[in-house]
Amino acid sequence: MVRSILLRGFDQDIANKIGKYMEDHGINFIREFVPIKVEQIEEGTPGRLKVTAKSTKGNQIIEGEYNTVLLAIGRDSCTRKIGLDKVGVQINEKTGKIPVNDEEQTNVPYIYAVGDILQDKLELTPVAIQAGRLLVQRLYAGATSKCDYVNVPTTVFTPLEYGACGYSEETAVEKFGEENIEVYHSHFWPLEWTVPSRDNNKCYAKIICNIQDNERVIGFHVLGPNAGEVTQGFAAAIKCGMTKEQLDSTIGIHPVCAEVCI
Amino acid sequence: MVRSILLRGFDQDIANKIGKYMEDHGINFIREFVPIKVEQIEEGTPGRLKVTAKSTKGNQIIEGEYNTVLLAIGRDSCTRKIGLDKVGVQINEKTGKIPVNDEEQTNVPYIYAVGDILQDKLELTPVAIQAGRLLVQRLYAGATSKCDYVNVPTTVFTPLEYGACGYSEETAVEKFGEENIEVYHSHFWPLEWTVPSRDNNKCYAKIICNIQDNERVIGFHVLGPNAGEVTQGFAAAIKCGMTKEQLDSTIGIHPVCAEVCI
Ligand SMILES: Cc1cc2nc3c(=O)[nH]c(=O)nc-3n(C[C@H](O)[C@H](O)[C@H](O)COP(=O)(O)OP(=O)(O)OC[C@H]3O[C@@H](n4cnc5c(N)ncnc54)[C@H](O)[C@@H]3O)c2cc1C
Ligand SMILES: Cc1cc2nc3c(=O)[nH]c(=O)nc-3n(C[C@H](O)[C@H](O)[C@H](O)COP(=O)(O)OP(=O)(O)OC[C@H]3O[C@@H](n4cnc5c(N)ncnc54)[C@H](O)[C@@H]3O)c2cc1C
Repeated sequence: MVRSILLRGFDQDIANKIGKYMEDHGINFIREFVPIKVEQIEEGTPGRLKVTAKSTKGNQIIEGEYNTVLLAIGRDSCTRKIGLDKVGVQINEKTGKIPVNDEEQTNVPYIYAVGDILQDKLELTPVAIQAGRLLVQRLYAGATSKCDYVNVPTTVFTPLEYGACGYSEETAVEKFGEENIEVYHSHFWPLEWTVPSRDNNKCYAKIICNIQDNERVIGFHVLGPNAGEVTQGFAAAIKCGMTKEQLDSTIGIHPVCAEVCI
Repeated sequence: MVRSILLRGFDQDIANKIGKYMEDHGINFIREFVPIKVEQIEEGTPGRLKVTAKSTKGNQIIEGEYNTVLLAIGRDSCTRKIGLDKVGVQINEKTGKIPVNDEEQTNVPYIYAVGDILQDKLELTPVAIQAGRLLVQRLYAGATSKCDYVNVPTTVFTPLEYGACGYSEETAVEKFGEENIEVYHSHFWPLEWTVPSRDNNKCYAKIICNIQDNERVIGFHVLGPNAGEVTQGFAAAIKCGMTKEQLDSTIGIHPVCAEVCI
């Protein structure tokens, strides 16, 4: 059951390919419905569960029987009862998240926040670690580097793994204008999948370049086996300001999936 | 049977780790011996083969029985009978390989050569492709870029996969002096291996930096699952002149093996 769209905030072109791939492999999505009741109708492991769900677009109610229900609904910040009001730290009333500036300062300048608790930032372990490390270095070691929340590589461990760094195509268009970006993309077929003739050309790589800035790579997206492993190094390259020309001048490694990206 | 050392030309620290790993997993190496005779002593699949081998250090002869013999001895260039002498193109008399300058020109300036046939160059598909592409662009499209034979990423598909780009530690020491390089390294344990408690800390990553040049990364070496996938992006970063500081400022992806490199 998908409340709205798959992988909100991620490149939607890729998100839809992930959905399509899962459907082709037997996952039955019920879109724009949310569960409103789960009742046990048979004991045991697995038992039977009756799920009642409601459309997010109207009043339609549906029911279904399942042996397992898994909820993947994210986490909440527990910021309401820790006395933030006493020291005057503002939180987002709706989400409980804490807004900070680009130095992780809350509205109370000597109170900082890092990690999942931040409003509009990424909920990822290495982001929390990096932000904390840089904050300490700024506060106590005279450093000036701030955490870069844009070029954060991330991986979604879907059956067809998805690795990304930088802007999604939607955000790039929004930020730079469609006429100022160039998108290069390619479907590919991992060598190991050719032998069993499996999923021909279901894997995909896409890079988004800023035409106004020397075709600098501002978005990297790859969908295929070990996409996370593939993405990490390209994230380092993006931190180095990689342009399309530098990407083209990189020699490939044959045979690996990652060679399609260069 | 290993004639001399494992993986000549590759970082020997890594090559020895690969050898050790294979030995630990049951591969029995006979070092500094070469086969001089193989005789079939029993027909069938598998049959029995008697192998006679000679020490490369002396006159010692040993014999052993095997069901399969696989020779991995490289290839030769067939350049002796194609009339190169008629047009005056020099070849290396011993190896048959063709020496060229950094524009892939042979000693006859209007005759070029690319690929495995070149002396002292890498025998890899993407290198041949890239060199050919750049040569054509220089000859017919007014381009000036030459093939970079140093920052070539490569992968050895050993049981513990090995990915590398740039200088080995030996070559870096030789070229820049031991006092001018800094080596950062780390053993690691892939998350998937922790569950079966398999091969704790057998994986390894190492980067070599040039202290005189802003700690620029001049060598990248990684030993572990999917090392090839991991290496490709870092090769792009090295093409962009990545420094240790830029590497440190890259955010990791958790959990993937590649995060150990940053
Ligand atoms: C199921 C799941 C899977 C995930 N998978 C990944 C992944 O694969 N990769 C990835 O990068 N990220 C993943 N994440 C996200 C990652 O866990 C978070 O981004 C990361 O833990 C954030 O670190 P943090 O320090 O900001 O918050 P947390 O790790 O949540 O730490 C906050 C701490 O504060 C404590 N605390 C709360 N209230 C109080 C109080 N009043 N007094 C004292 N202590 C308090 C909590 O107990 C907790 O220990 C996953 C998250 C979940 C839930
Ligand atoms: C078993 C093996 C595994 C390999 N695995 C990998 C790998 O995983 N990754 C990788 O990057 N590289 C790998 N390589 C290396 C890769 O194959 C070579 O680097 C690549 O093929 C070099 O391309 P080339 O065009 O220089 O030479 P080749 O591909 O050898 O092409 C030379 C061509 O010239 C032809 N020829 C020879 N003489 C004449 C003549 N007189 N007239 C006309 N034609 C002639 C030959 O038939 C051949 O087709 C492997 C090589 C081998 C042998």
